[in-house]
Amino acid sequence: MESGQIRLNKATGEWVIYAPSRRKRPQDFQQASQDKPELINHHKSCPFCDGNEMEKEPILLEIINPDHSHWQTRVVANKFPALTTLESPERTLNGIYMIMPGYGCHEVVIESPEHQQTLATMPVTEVEIVIETYHQRYLKLMEDPQTMMVIIFRNHGKGAGASLRHPHSQIIATGIVPSHRRWQETEAQRYFDHWGRCVYCDILAFEKQEKKRIIEENDLFVAFIPFAAEVPCEIMIIPKQHQADFGSISEAEKTAFTQILHDVLGRLYHKLNNPDYNYVINTAARYKADEPQLHWYCQIQPRLTTPAGFEMGSGIRINPSIPEVDAAFLRDK
Amino acid sequence: MESGQIRLNKATGEWVIYAPSRRKRPQDFQQASQDKPELINHHKSCPFCDGNEMEKEPILLEIINPDHSHWQTRVVANKFPALTTLESPERTLNGIYMIMPGYGCHEVVIESPEHQQTLATMPVTEVEIVIETYHQRYLKLMEDPQTMMVIIFRNHGKGAGASLRHPHSQIIATGIVPSHRRWQETEAQRYFDHWGRCVYCDILAFEKQEKKRIIEENDLFVAFIPFAAEVPCEIMIIPKQHQADFGSISEAEKTAFTQILHDVLGRLYHKLNNPDYNYVINTAARYKADEPQLHWYCQIQPRLTTPAGFEMGSGIRINPSIPEVDAAFLRDK
Repeated sequence: MESGQIRLNKATGEWVIYAPSRRKRPQDFQQASQDKPELINHHKSCPFCDGNEMEKEPILLEIINPDHSHWQTRVVANKFPALTTLESPERTLNGIYMIMPGYGCHEVVIESPEHQQTLATMPVTEVEIVIETYHQRYLKLMEDPQTMMVIIFRNHGKGAGASLRHPHSQIIATGIVPSHRRWQETEAQRYFDHWGRCVYCDILAFEKQEKKRIIEENDLFVAFIPFAAEVPCEIMIIPKQHQADFGSISEAEKTAFTQILHDVLGRLYHKLNNPDYNYVINTAARYKADEPQLHWYCQIQPRLTTPAGFEMGSGIRINPSIPEVDAAFLRDK
Repeated sequence: MESGQIRLNKATGEWVIYAPSRRKRPQDFQQASQDKPELINHHKSCPFCDGNEMEKEPILLEIINPDHSHWQTRVVANKFPALTTLESPERTLNGIYMIMPGYGCHEVVIESPEHQQTLATMPVTEVEIVIETYHQRYLKLMEDPQTMMVIIFRNHGKGAGASLRHPHSQIIATGIVPSHRRWQETEAQRYFDHWGRCVYCDILAFEKQEKKRIIEENDLFVAFIPFAAEVPCEIMIIPKQHQADFGSISEAEKTAFTQILHDVLGRLYHKLNNPDYNYVINTAARYKADEPQLHWYCQIQPRLTTPAGFEMGSGIRINPSIPEVDAAFLRDK
């Protein structure tokens, strides 16, 4: 039997089990071809398609395409918001328990007027407008002093929780910072207090030296499979320059981030046949934007395995695939 | 619009969002009737059915049924183990990263000789033998001084990660304790150091006083929907007597635990039409079995929602259902 491994995520302190007898090759995760998207530009019942938006929420932001012929991205309030600013952020006790109203924002970023598009297949210039849209809304949402944290995320495909086909991301701003994030900050703080350096910067330097897990690199960003990836073909994209806050991304970095995100999503699309995936931009919570131990990154997780009772009880993921093998598979064009 | 809520889990420190506009009634989660199990007693290709076990791993434990006519439960090594004792538990550094071999145990508890059975529909006397089997294997696995933690769990249905229909649970013993568990211990420790009491005992006392979230109670156990339930119809079963370690369950407690587990699984089965679910027995890690701030419990999570990018980034779950409503729905026989 092949030898098993358990790896520790250096940044979060979480263990991941690599299961020898369950081990699969990355290509075993290719999706069946019937999962390919429908190829229509416009869908008459899609709320994000042109002409169907009349009864929708007001448009919070709209970016026009470079030839000024049409909108390229739009931001609207989520019609079924998890949180709203109609609520107060005031916490109260309910007997022994802490409770607060559902204060926050929940927005949808419509990434293209074209119904059948997806980030992986759009021209890179259009993806850059999506990133610009993220950045503008991020800065805007952080203007509200009650916003403690902004989560920018994308659910692609039904298995990843997407209910609509039209390409879109979501942004949620919360008035709380979860323990989950505080524990990650604590791990990074402890590392910084030991070594005097950001753990993410050290990981980046080691990955560049080892090269085994790197998929793509440009002047300003690196994309690699984390040493303790939780799922097959998980990808982390990280800025080379130390930067805790996504909000402080420069113009050049936006271009470079777009290029590498588009590249790795294209690799997943072509090599795994358009798998369902989630991605999220992990960035510092309020008051942490200038801290030397935090570093923003984009984490992409294809939905190729199902966490079950063991993961629920232990918080340990079981990954049937090996990061170095996944990286070689995705690196090879 | 209905007013939203965010609730804090008093024991773990994790927040859960209750989404007003996404809110559903518990009966909206009833499964379609085609999800009902196949009704055959024996399946010729099932490795857990009688007569098919010849090439299997050795039987680690077998409990005979009360009339001595047949085995009632069996424990075998998982054919595709996540961890094995063939590996060493010795940790090493791989460059900057911590790594260890895949040391541990991964066992399958075959819960009945009958292929189409499930805990919800079995006679309660047969379920008691399953709990007895858990207990015996738990004590056995903890005899190995390298075992740091034992996770007993059950994945029911494909959506919950079960690959075989024949009724079974799994037990994984690890040589590591994950941060996820250590953070929970830290929360409980902090509460104990403030109040001088176990947070779970306090939750239990408050739930018994409020009654709104209780589903079922007997002399020794209470089953209720947690105040900050992560998913619709999540159920927590907890011993009334303070007890950190599942291993110290008494004979009377095994009978009472069986009765209440069978009861609540029956409620889920009949009221939600046999939903997929996971359950796990959360019990103290090694060296923590006598600590006054920890308390074992069984956590049952039906798979009725899909966590996505937001949950991945924040660790906050979005639950479209309200615990008090779920409890009333499940309480009503």
